[in-house]
Amino acid sequence: MQELNQQLDFIIELDRLKGVYRQALVKSDKNRFENSAEHSWHITLTAHILHEYAAEKVNISRVMCMLLIHDIVEIDAGDMFAFSDQKALAYQQDKEIVAAERLFGLLPEKQFQTFNQLWLEFEEAQTVDARFAKAIDSILPLLQNMRNEGGSWVRHKVNKSQVMKRNRFLEGLAPDLWLYVCQQIDYAVEQGWLVDA
Amino acid sequence: MQELNQQLDFIIELDRLKGVYRQALVKSDKNRFENSAEHSWHITLTAHILHEYAAEKVNISRVMCMLLIHDIVEIDAGDMFAFSDQKALAYQQDKEIVAAERLFGLLPEKQFQTFNQLWLEFEEAQTVDARFAKAIDSILPLLQNMRNEGGSWVRHKVNKSQVMKRNRFLEGLAPDLWLYVCQQIDYAVEQGWLVDA
Ligand SMILES: [Ca+2]
Repeated sequence: MQELNQQLDFIIELDRLKGVYRQALVKSDKNRFENSAEHSWHITLTAHILHEYAAEKVNISRVMCMLLIHDIVEIDAGDMFAFSDQKALAYQQDKEIVAAERLFGLLPEKQFQTFNQLWLEFEEAQTVDARFAKAIDSILPLLQNMRNEGGSWVRHKVNKSQVMKRNRFLEGLAPDLWLYVCQQIDYAVEQGWLVDA
Repeated sequence: MQELNQQLDFIIELDRLKGVYRQALVKSDKNRFENSAEHSWHITLTAHILHEYAAEKVNISRVMCMLLIHDIVEIDAGDMFAFSDQKALAYQQDKEIVAAERLFGLLPEKQFQTFNQLWLEFEEAQTVDARFAKAIDSILPLLQNMRNEGGSWVRHKVNKSQVMKRNRFLEGLAPDLWLYVCQQIDYAVEQGWLVDA
């Protein structure tokens, strides 16, 4: 039962991701902040629904696993706003590597290796699966901000070029989605939700 | 772009599951109630971590899909406490069937069929995949209640026999997990968290 106990400890520890809050607002729940656990559910399902737009075939069950686990490190490292400055982002990355070791390290060795490698693959964004997962992770906040009169973009005075850059993965990966994103960004600039720079 | 627009409407509609609250408490976030979106994330990952305990091989990516979508009907139908009376549960079932038609119906026809069938398969609990998914959906509340001095069991004066019945799927499906659950239930009775009946 030792392995099972390790696994159950990890599963219980996951509960803490429900207390890590992000910059996005949940419009349908009184505009409270969104937490990283419900966000992870939302993007995993989004990836499943949109995976046929990928120009190159993705392994959707690997992508789903990546997205289910991609934010777990925030239990220790906290969430960092995607448009923070470079120094803050680099420091965050160091914290997340330590967090991954501790958190996935609660699991039996074999599962630790699987999850840690899958998480690193996501972070490095070199494989098609990881790049598609990253692309989905950026498109959802865009959809949310578009339904929230600009949402976190307005609060943090984000530029059009920052959002373009963050979503650029889509260009080669899923051209139809990229086209959609460009149209939305133009509309957001017109509305004054994004700074035209 | 018509299909994409249908898919994005569905994805945005999913946001509402973050505002559907369950009986479980999130201990690590000031004991607030848990919502069905973060719950769906938690059990999907739990299924992945524990699927090697299944006595018969399950198709884990189907199980994960089932668990990601199993509570979406609650957007229209609301959550019902697992130990409500039979009449309330039957009425809930009718509401959920209508909800599934409307919600999955936002998607293009092919995805509507896939998701609606997968959800029905989960509800009917006849296949190995569905039964394993159901078993995981019952074991997680047990783990949560054990870490919360009985949690929702205490508030609703739940009997040992009700919890045994709800988890009985595990007996044949995953004997090691069933053994663990039995031990936990005995401990809960000793502590007075479950009524010994
Ligand atoms: Ca449920």
